[in-house]
Amino acid sequence: MHIKKQRLLTPGPTPLYPPALHAMMASDLHHRTEDFRKIYQSALADLKVVMGTSYDVVPLVSSGSGAMDASVSNLFSKGDHVIVCSAGKFGERWSGIAKAYGLRVTELTAPYGDAVKPAAVIAALAANTDVKGVFIQASESSTGAAHDVKTIGEAVRKTSAIFIVDAITGLGTMPLDIEGWGLDVVIGGSQKAFMIPPGIAFLSVSPKAWKMEETSDLPHFYFNLKKEAKNAAAGESSWTPATSLILALAEALKYVKSIGMAQLIDNAQLLAKATRAAAVALGLELFTPHSPGAAVTAIKAPAGMDSGKIVKGFRERFGAIIANGQGEMKGRIFRVAHLGYFDFMDLFAVVASLEMILDANGHPVKFGTGVAAVQEVYAEAAGIRQPVHVE
Amino acid sequence: MHIKKQRLLTPGPTPLYPPALHAMMASDLHHRTEDFRKIYQSALADLKVVMGTSYDVVPLVSSGSGAMDASVSNLFSKGDHVIVCSAGKFGERWSGIAKAYGLRVTELTAPYGDAVKPAAVIAALAANTDVKGVFIQASESSTGAAHDVKTIGEAVRKTSAIFIVDAITGLGTMPLDIEGWGLDVVIGGSQKAFMIPPGIAFLSVSPKAWKMEETSDLPHFYFNLKKEAKNAAAGESSWTPATSLILALAEALKYVKSIGMAQLIDNAQLLAKATRAAAVALGLELFTPHSPGAAVTAIKAPAGMDSGKIVKGFRERFGAIIANGQGEMKGRIFRVAHLGYFDFMDLFAVVASLEMILDANGHPVKFGTGVAAVQEVYAEAAGIRQPVHVE
Repeated sequence: MHIKKQRLLTPGPTPLYPPALHAMMASDLHHRTEDFRKIYQSALADLKVVMGTSYDVVPLVSSGSGAMDASVSNLFSKGDHVIVCSAGKFGERWSGIAKAYGLRVTELTAPYGDAVKPAAVIAALAANTDVKGVFIQASESSTGAAHDVKTIGEAVRKTSAIFIVDAITGLGTMPLDIEGWGLDVVIGGSQKAFMIPPGIAFLSVSPKAWKMEETSDLPHFYFNLKKEAKNAAAGESSWTPATSLILALAEALKYVKSIGMAQLIDNAQLLAKATRAAAVALGLELFTPHSPGAAVTAIKAPAGMDSGKIVKGFRERFGAIIANGQGEMKGRIFRVAHLGYFDFMDLFAVVASLEMILDANGHPVKFGTGVAAVQEVYAEAAGIRQPVHVE
Repeated sequence: MHIKKQRLLTPGPTPLYPPALHAMMASDLHHRTEDFRKIYQSALADLKVVMGTSYDVVPLVSSGSGAMDASVSNLFSKGDHVIVCSAGKFGERWSGIAKAYGLRVTELTAPYGDAVKPAAVIAALAANTDVKGVFIQASESSTGAAHDVKTIGEAVRKTSAIFIVDAITGLGTMPLDIEGWGLDVVIGGSQKAFMIPPGIAFLSVSPKAWKMEETSDLPHFYFNLKKEAKNAAAGESSWTPATSLILALAEALKYVKSIGMAQLIDNAQLLAKATRAAAVALGLELFTPHSPGAAVTAIKAPAGMDSGKIVKGFRERFGAIIANGQGEMKGRIFRVAHLGYFDFMDLFAVVASLEMILDANGHPVKFGTGVAAVQEVYAEAAGIRQPVHVE
C-alpha cells in the first residue's frame, strides 16, 4: 500500500475527463480569431443541446457563484420581494446574494437533509402576490437533497415571478425540462457534471427573465447577461474568455453528447442508488433519506465517530479526496459524489475503502458487504442478476 | 453504468503516473542544449539509484526488445554457445534473438506457468564449459512466473559466462541486487514499473560484460552500447533521444525515489498476494502456483469459459483493459497486473468487476467474496486486522 493514487472524488471539482484535460494543451490560440470563434460557438451550441433548451445560454468566466450573483444583479430591482427556498449552505448563499443587492427576502427553509416542499412555495406565492422571483437549488449539494423543481416551476409559471434554479450540481444528475417546467434561469458550472476544471459558469435565460432584465436597476458591470448573450451569438465574449476551459468544455460536451444527457443522469442516479444500498448494508444512516439527489450522497458517520476520520482515512490510507460535511454538518456526515465522470469501478473502490476505514476506526464491518450491495444494484440494472445471489 | 472510464490495467503499457504525462508537455526543447543535458544526466543518475548499481546504465530509444537485441549483438560473437532459460513467450524471444545472430543455443525450458530451476542451469553450466552467456527473464510476464535470478546469478558468476537478465517486468516487482548477485546485464523498459509510455529501454552493463564487448564480432550500428554509454556519461546521446519520454522518466523517477524502490516492490508484491487470495476465494486456479511473480498474476479461466470472455467483459462492461494469455495460453488465462502505478483502490475495483463478469458468464460468485480476500491481505499488512473478521 505504498502507492496511493491521487483520486479527486468530490462533488466539485469532479474527476476530469482526460481528453478534455488534454484538449487544454491547444490553448495557444487567440480568442479574437475565427479558429477560436468556431470552437466557442460549437461549445455553446452543444451546451444548449445537452441542457435541452432553445433559450439563450450565457457563458461567464466565473465560478457558479458568479452566475448566481449575475442572475440577481441582472434581473431584479432594489427592494424586489423574492422567495428563497433554503435547505442547506447553497440555499443560504441565495439569501446572502439577494440581501447584498437589497432585495426583500422571504425564506422558506427546510432542515439540513430535507427539501423545501412544493406546497410551502405554492402557499407563499399565494400569500405574497408581489413576489418577483423564486430561488432554489435543484440539487443542494451540501446535504445531497434534491428539490422538486418540476412542481414548483409549474406553480411559479402561473405568477408574474421568475424561477431561478441553481442547477450547478443538478445538471447531469436529474432531469430538468427547462422550457416544459417553467425554469426561467438554470445555472450550471464547468467543474460539475461537465467533467472539466472550475472557471466557467453558464445560465439559460427564458424570455420571461429577459423581460425582467429590461427593468432591472441593480448595479453590475462585469456580469452583463444581455451583452454577453449578444456577443455569444456572434461567437464573441464581452471580456477575455477562459480559452483553455472552453477547449476542455468543447471536448467534454462531445463526450456527454455521445453517451446522451439522459444516460449521464441515469449513470449518476444508479451510482447514488448503489451508494445508498451500500450505506444501509454497512449499518450507516443516510443524512437525506426522504429527498435524496443523485449528485452526491450524504451519509452520517457512525455514532461517536467524527466524519473527519473517514475523510482523513480516504486521504491518508488511499490518497482519495472525498467531501466532509460543510458548516455545522462538518464532522457529522461525509459525502460520496456521483456527478459527472464517475463509474462503477470508482464506486467499487470507494465502498471497499470505506469498509476498511470504518472497520479500522471502531465500526466493525464484514468485509465485502457494502461492495456486494453495489454489485447487486449493478447486476439488477444490467439484467445479469443470478438467482444464486438471493439467500 | 453508462460511463466506463478507460483504464489501462495491463502488465505494459502500465497505468501512467499523471505528473510524468504532464511533464511531456515541456518537450519544446532541443536535445543538444545544456537544458536538456541536465535533465538527461539527472534521469540517468536517478535510474542508477533506483536500479541500485554503480555499473554503467545505457539508455536506448527502443522498446525492451531492442535492448534484448542489443545485449546479444554487442556482447557476443558468431557461433558462441549460450544457455537460454525459457519458461514462456519472452524466454522464446531470447532464443529467437540469439539464433538470429548465429549463436549456438542450449535451451533449458520449463512448462508455461513454471520456472526454470537453478539446478538445471548449474548442471548445464557444468556440462558445457564453453558457454559464454546465460539468458533469462527475471519475471516471465506471459505466465507471471518469477525466476530465482539470485541463485542462478551466483552460479554463473563462477564461470566465464555472463548473465543477461531481462528484467523488463522484474525491475520494481522483485529485489534485484545487480552487483551482489552477479547480474551482468539487467534490462528495463519505460512502460513497465517506470509508469511512462513505451519508447525507452535501458541496460546496466557490468565490467565483465564490457570485457566481452571488446571481442564481440556481431554486426550492429544503431544499438552501440559502448558509444551510447560514453555519450550518456557526458549527457549526450548517440542519436536523437526521445525527449518527451526522458522528461516523463525524470518525473517518474523522482516519484519512485520518493517512495523508495523497496516500497515500490513491496507494493507490487502485496497486490500480487491479495490477487492470489482473491482468485482462490473465487474458486479460480492460479496458472503459476509454484513460482508466482509480482509483476502480473495469471489466473486460469473457469473450466469451459474462454478467458477472452473475461477480458471482453472488462472492456465492454467496465471500459478496462486487462491482458489475455499470449500464444497458446490465449483463451485459457487472464492476467492481472501489479507493476508500477497500481494501488489497492485499483485492485478493489478490478476484483469487484471480475466477480460480476464471472457471475454473468456462468461461474456463480457470492458478491464481495474476492474483494473481502483483498481487504484481508491489506488489513493484515497495515496492521488493522480486527478479530471480528475471523469467523
